[in-house]
Amino acid sequence: MNLHDLIRDLREPNTTKIVLVVADGLGGLPLEMGGKTELETARTPNLDGCAREGVCGLSVPVLPGITPGSGPGHLGLFGYDPLEYKIGRGILEALGINFQVGPRDVAVRCNFCTVDDKGVIADRRAGRPTTERCVAMCQKLAAIKVPGVELFVEPVREHRFVVVFRGDNLGDKVNDTDPQQVGAEPLLAVGEDEASQHTAKAVNQFVAEAGRLLKHDAPTNMITLRGFARYPKIDTMQEVYGLKAACIAVYPMYKGLARLVGMDVVEAGATLSDQVETLKKFWDAYDFFFMHYKYTDSTGEDGNFDGKVEMIERLDAEIPKVRALNPDVLIITGDHSTPSKLKSHSWHPVPTLLAARTCRPDAVVEFGESYCLRGGLGQFEAKHLMSLAMAHAGRLGKYGA
Amino acid sequence: MNLHDLIRDLREPNTTKIVLVVADGLGGLPLEMGGKTELETARTPNLDGCAREGVCGLSVPVLPGITPGSGPGHLGLFGYDPLEYKIGRGILEALGINFQVGPRDVAVRCNFCTVDDKGVIADRRAGRPTTERCVAMCQKLAAIKVPGVELFVEPVREHRFVVVFRGDNLGDKVNDTDPQQVGAEPLLAVGEDEASQHTAKAVNQFVAEAGRLLKHDAPTNMITLRGFARYPKIDTMQEVYGLKAACIAVYPMYKGLARLVGMDVVEAGATLSDQVETLKKFWDAYDFFFMHYKYTDSTGEDGNFDGKVEMIERLDAEIPKVRALNPDVLIITGDHSTPSKLKSHSWHPVPTLLAARTCRPDAVVEFGESYCLRGGLGQFEAKHLMSLAMAHAGRLGKYGA
Repeated sequence: MNLHDLIRDLREPNTTKIVLVVADGLGGLPLEMGGKTELETARTPNLDGCAREGVCGLSVPVLPGITPGSGPGHLGLFGYDPLEYKIGRGILEALGINFQVGPRDVAVRCNFCTVDDKGVIADRRAGRPTTERCVAMCQKLAAIKVPGVELFVEPVREHRFVVVFRGDNLGDKVNDTDPQQVGAEPLLAVGEDEASQHTAKAVNQFVAEAGRLLKHDAPTNMITLRGFARYPKIDTMQEVYGLKAACIAVYPMYKGLARLVGMDVVEAGATLSDQVETLKKFWDAYDFFFMHYKYTDSTGEDGNFDGKVEMIERLDAEIPKVRALNPDVLIITGDHSTPSKLKSHSWHPVPTLLAARTCRPDAVVEFGESYCLRGGLGQFEAKHLMSLAMAHAGRLGKYGA
Repeated sequence: MNLHDLIRDLREPNTTKIVLVVADGLGGLPLEMGGKTELETARTPNLDGCAREGVCGLSVPVLPGITPGSGPGHLGLFGYDPLEYKIGRGILEALGINFQVGPRDVAVRCNFCTVDDKGVIADRRAGRPTTERCVAMCQKLAAIKVPGVELFVEPVREHRFVVVFRGDNLGDKVNDTDPQQVGAEPLLAVGEDEASQHTAKAVNQFVAEAGRLLKHDAPTNMITLRGFARYPKIDTMQEVYGLKAACIAVYPMYKGLARLVGMDVVEAGATLSDQVETLKKFWDAYDFFFMHYKYTDSTGEDGNFDGKVEMIERLDAEIPKVRALNPDVLIITGDHSTPSKLKSHSWHPVPTLLAARTCRPDAVVEFGESYCLRGGLGQFEAKHLMSLAMAHAGRLGKYGA
């Protein structure tokens, strides 16, 4: 039986509130043998208090050994099996620049590149142009018209931009036109099925016209496209869980992911304190709140152990204000680990705590990886976290008699 | 690969004995932060001894966060995936009154209700009649004849009774006739497929005749039907595991569940001591014994913490007699948790111990939720318990060469 069908069958109305705080890339590693992780190093009296009263564990974002990107990492936390619900690269790139993709869209990641006078690629990134030039070139491309589709050309940064093809019956089974090497020409787009042939035809027209328009703009005199992706068909959290859900995030990508699962994206402000104020402001209007905190990940990606420790301590300082709202279920976790030692996302299970009146407390007295390993939630696949949240919030009835 | 197919391939004959003691609703919660659960509070020297010698863990009855009813809870322990094998409400109700449903049966939960002279429901439960009246009314209905089906009308209690339609080609995809509200007439039964149309026709004839017979018996002057369910098609434990299995239970529902998976239901007596005597008596005749102990659940449902503690201690006192029989595998677990704090079944994992000469002992020295969290079985889905039992009983060969 499908997990969402099961939850749909069992869910019961309630007035309880669930708060899911995602500290991006929360899990870490000690720098040296016998050392502590970032979370274990940080002074976190408030998180420790939650851990003592609640139940802890380690979340496996996808499967053991699998390192997730932000998309699958968050989908798992929202209860959507990340191996079943896939979000294409083009869509993620569009979400990342806050472009509101819709059900008739195919989104594509694009590069400006440099071609010689025979059309052969000399530089796949066009010498990394400035973002200003990227914006100017995108404005130029925005003038292109292709019959039967609406086109959006949106800069990202340097050589990177997004194109969205909007229209009826557009498939996304289209090959990348980037040959992934210099000395080759960009590939023609070919569609695998009828709808994708539709898309490919529009793509080839767009690229040909782009070539003409950019002819004298070397080094940004050609484009390549990859990661064709349709807007995924996903049931909303309202449909699956019966939850009215709000997203309180600062960065576009996370707002976009929340929108994908039907959350309302409310204006969050710029800082974590602003986010907590937003939480207060909308407390009565929603059942479920997703608060996203970016800086535990970005410091980890930078390899900045001390910086990550500090960002965790800043998160800790806001926890009392969240608890003061008296959520029925408060979850603090990450979408994946980002150990500063590795300067990247990793597969390591993610420390997770769930505080609720109905949880079975465990022996965890500090919120950290080592303690979580002994926690009552054990090691669990992230996709089950929402079932646990719903159960502890008194929103799931009994399965069978 | 299907778990049962795997076991069928690997199973090997042996003369070993497996005893599965199910203390219904065994898992619990502390009443207060920092406190102990019912099982942790109980003095259980004999269970603790088993835990020291054996291996412990926590069983997840269905999936994280999912609270099971008795049906799915037990099917999981018997090794039948509770999400794959479903037992309809009507069948469970029939099992609960010890009605021996069979493969040609559709069982239905019924209510006596009160209708006004226009046939509109005024009371969905007929003012909760006495059980004596329920019995009398059922006797009246038992006189009804419907061509092509054999009918059984069996009282449950108060307004509730069971009707079983027995015949060839009877489907159970039939809507509830209970409109779930007063001020509406009972609904006609409609079948979704041909076999269920068969059933629906018989149902409508039965209900029309019931209306005539009960016309002057207000407030019990009409009936509604819901939870139509066929007898599920389930391979027996003999077929799957090659085990000759006996059920030693006091309550009808658990006998019925055991019969569903092909166990012989032997006369158990009324008390746990009687059940242990029964175990001794049938020791040579069976390979597998399911002993069901109800009172850990019923005290939990009553919110009676001390009562549940006492019932656990009574179970503990019987353990030496069970061990004296020298079972090759002795398992003590529950079908789900019933924390007296919640007065209901819950989703919390269930303390489980397995004692056998072949188990790898762990550090557990007391049988309780906190210790089990550190046990060698870890947290595991209940459906895997029978594979573990079979393995420890030397009844499973190697998979692959």
